[in-house]
Amino acid sequence: AHAQSSVTIYGTLDAGIAKISGTTAQITKRDNNKLGFRGVEDLGNGLKALFQLEVRFEPDTGTVEAGSRPLFQGQSRVGLQGGFGTIRLGRGLTAYQEASVAFEPWNGLPTVSPSSTGGSIGPGFQPDLHVAGYTSDPLGPAGNSRNRFSNAVFYNSPLFNGFQVNLTVGAKEANGNAALIGRGTALAPQYPANSVPSAAPYSLSATYNNGRFGALAAYERNAVETDVWAVAASYKPTADLKLMASYQKQDQSHTMAANAETKAWVLGANYTVGAGKVLLGYGQKTPDAMPHTKQASVGYEHSLSPRTYVYADLSNRKSPPVANQTILRSYTFYGVGVHHNF
Amino acid sequence: AHAQSSVTIYGTLDAGIAKISGTTAQITKRDNNKLGFRGVEDLGNGLKALFQLEVRFEPDTGTVEAGSRPLFQGQSRVGLQGGFGTIRLGRGLTAYQEASVAFEPWNGLPTVSPSSTGGSIGPGFQPDLHVAGYTSDPLGPAGNSRNRFSNAVFYNSPLFNGFQVNLTVGAKEANGNAALIGRGTALAPQYPANSVPSAAPYSLSATYNNGRFGALAAYERNAVETDVWAVAASYKPTADLKLMASYQKQDQSHTMAANAETKAWVLGANYTVGAGKVLLGYGQKTPDAMPHTKQASVGYEHSLSPRTYVYADLSNRKSPPVANQTILRSYTFYGVGVHHNF
Amino acid sequence: AHAQSSVTIYGTLDAGIAKISGTTAQITKRDNNKLGFRGVEDLGNGLKALFQLEVRFEPDTGTVEAGSRPLFQGQSRVGLQGGFGTIRLGRGLTAYQEASVAFEPWNGLPTVSPSSTGGSIGPGFQPDLHVAGYTSDPLGPAGNSRNRFSNAVFYNSPLFNGFQVNLTVGAKEANGNAALIGRGTALAPQYPANSVPSAAPYSLSATYNNGRFGALAAYERNAVETDVWAVAASYKPTADLKLMASYQKQDQSHTMAANAETKAWVLGANYTVGAGKVLLGYGQKTPDAMPHTKQASVGYEHSLSPRTYVYADLSNRKSPPVANQTILRSYTFYGVGVHHNF
Repeated sequence: AHAQSSVTIYGTLDAGIAKISGTTAQITKRDNNKLGFRGVEDLGNGLKALFQLEVRFEPDTGTVEAGSRPLFQGQSRVGLQGGFGTIRLGRGLTAYQEASVAFEPWNGLPTVSPSSTGGSIGPGFQPDLHVAGYTSDPLGPAGNSRNRFSNAVFYNSPLFNGFQVNLTVGAKEANGNAALIGRGTALAPQYPANSVPSAAPYSLSATYNNGRFGALAAYERNAVETDVWAVAASYKPTADLKLMASYQKQDQSHTMAANAETKAWVLGANYTVGAGKVLLGYGQKTPDAMPHTKQASVGYEHSLSPRTYVYADLSNRKSPPVANQTILRSYTFYGVGVHHNF
Repeated sequence: AHAQSSVTIYGTLDAGIAKISGTTAQITKRDNNKLGFRGVEDLGNGLKALFQLEVRFEPDTGTVEAGSRPLFQGQSRVGLQGGFGTIRLGRGLTAYQEASVAFEPWNGLPTVSPSSTGGSIGPGFQPDLHVAGYTSDPLGPAGNSRNRFSNAVFYNSPLFNGFQVNLTVGAKEANGNAALIGRGTALAPQYPANSVPSAAPYSLSATYNNGRFGALAAYERNAVETDVWAVAASYKPTADLKLMASYQKQDQSHTMAANAETKAWVLGANYTVGAGKVLLGYGQKTPDAMPHTKQASVGYEHSLSPRTYVYADLSNRKSPPVANQTILRSYTFYGVGVHHNF
Repeated sequence: AHAQSSVTIYGTLDAGIAKISGTTAQITKRDNNKLGFRGVEDLGNGLKALFQLEVRFEPDTGTVEAGSRPLFQGQSRVGLQGGFGTIRLGRGLTAYQEASVAFEPWNGLPTVSPSSTGGSIGPGFQPDLHVAGYTSDPLGPAGNSRNRFSNAVFYNSPLFNGFQVNLTVGAKEANGNAALIGRGTALAPQYPANSVPSAAPYSLSATYNNGRFGALAAYERNAVETDVWAVAASYKPTADLKLMASYQKQDQSHTMAANAETKAWVLGANYTVGAGKVLLGYGQKTPDAMPHTKQASVGYEHSLSPRTYVYADLSNRKSPPVANQTILRSYTFYGVGVHHNF
């Protein structure tokens, strides 16, 4: 009954071959793979209705993302936009997670987590070092992603001289989590299975961007009252070069009796030269009383068109193979592949 | 290989905030959320081929509907249309369920069933009172919906002076049900897991509509030989006002030794005033020897465009919290949200 | 952000009524049901980027294919095409399986496998006799299909005077298989659950087609080192008649101590007359020291348009009801239905 023009289909396919030192080569991805449906309706008087639904999937096996995530893992949101800003309801990236990717040299790529080998690693810093190991959704179902709120209200202010404020607030709804022991015991976990959040989770970010200079300040507290704050900045000395830096600190003292703080920082650069783009990054993560995780990455993207590029990455990461271990293991990651937007 | 114009993409996003007395506020939905694909091909000589596939999902978490339903929960049907009427095969609403929503003041909205609190409730009457508690698919997989047949043939007659006859017949196929004890015992259930229907399920409805006056008579028998019959009528004294009434009776004597009959009736009105629409309803459900369930609802929809409206609902329901209990519990439901078609 | 024209939506709905001797009639399918998304981008200089994502589903229940398969069961591939041929990464039909359907009289239709009755049967020969019972993906998750590689690289050469060479190579990645006992024991299976392939699986096919004459030679070895080779040919004495024959041999000696070889052959014909098409086929499968499976089929398709046809099939199959049984059971299959492409 509705015109075809009211929905736009978009997506990303990204597949490649990657190898981690000591393992065999694998077919994998570098970026998230998406199939999305979105639309905007002009309601008049500056008001708009908007929606977005985004399937995420694994290109190498054809399953939904990680074989376990919701059909519309990317997002499922609907709302209104006007002079007051944008307000949406549903599931999506939190205000902090959504704003932070602009300050990460791989622009928020997922960590590749091979199914058959130890060692979750990829060239980017976003899902771990760039957020100090923090997860936005500790009470989500097993296998869920780490940077979204379900059952949430999302607000974005209008842009005002380059400034914007974003707020996400989640409802205190249970969402099928596995038991989380925390400060409890195996018999009496702090958060039993299918728990209601002990406090409403929320996420707040403020951003500034004038084209040459960008900045972020953010604070988020999740459903088990772990919090994280972050500051980040970027600078473009020339149109071709973007430098970026971030610092973040996670506090898990609500669920951990000791070593509850984690600090992390990431430095990065993107340099565009003709059809090529060079990506560089270095970061460290420092949990209390644990060895530092250190990661250095270099990547190259070569555009075949505005929608398609091929890429190669090299990354080294030194980190404990298991949480709370004091020994470090060194992984080296090599990857090549193709990235296509539609 | 086929022209893009042969498929239409359509859908509905509906999300809001609702609260049931005694619980915390939740992000939820009021209407079903859909993403559909459909097409009609003109075969010449008045013959058409048609198909429809409809994904259902939860906007607040991004999962498929109820986290458990088939990918194309809404429907998956293909068939032919001509002078003989329309015949389709697959899965969809039964003839009775599809025709009955025109006589329900909320037009067949689902009951909201919050995951973390007791009390399945919403403003509408359709999935419970309006069908006398009947379910069309008792041998479907756990978590399946209650108003569809899988493995079925769907026939709709042509319209003849406002009259139409609709028939749905299901095959005697097992579809992965959990054991249904019925008149058996836990060790020897009347319908063991993955049972074949004891009789072919079918659904028959006859409708009349002349614009001002509408009427329905329907009969349906499901795979465990529970049957339901219903009569309903609607009347529009003016173009802005629609009054409606229905009476339905379910007989579960094939699977229940006592108290097998349930009778229910619902009265409703829709009143359109400018961009606003007021919805009113009251109904009762009377299982044999059980207390009456009583529900009263009032709602308001305000159109922002032909495709988008905001809404608010208030509903009170008195019903036993568990089947076969004689005490009544009173729930009050409040909800606001946004509804967008594309 | 991208133009709508960069994605094409396509699909197939096929549903019908089928009956196997000794069982009740069922709503089922004859062909695979699909909803696909694909695109090609011209990168200039003869280079193209291409992707394809294909949902498979069951029309009678609305679930994903077999209720268990990946969302993009049909395929999820992305790659580049140029003077060198086509190279893609992801999941899809192997080089052998994709090329072989042109030599099967039902063009590779799936075998219908009713959920509630014994006897997996359909009119076509492809998933069993036409590949000598071979499966391309023995280490896939339970319920997975039998003719695809996940985690693979797919190469197709350019056409050269009607000749083409196709190669698929899979990575040595575990993909969630159930334990496969093979030459091991229940306690120490040859391939435990979630095994890495003992050798990289690959598939190689060479085809020739000059319009009138077609030929195939193929070899494939799967992740448990079962191999299959096949030769096939087709000939069109007139434009309306296509004759085809194939011979294939599977060797399971890597996982079976005895009776490891299976040979099979299929003969077929397609005859087009006006809007009608007659399909005929006969084949045998001969596992070592086991009774022959024999199948004979006749079918008729009647086109209502280039996109829609109705069909009727009749097939008889004599085969052991369970592997390694020496008695034969005879099934007769009757089916009618409608097939619609969009």
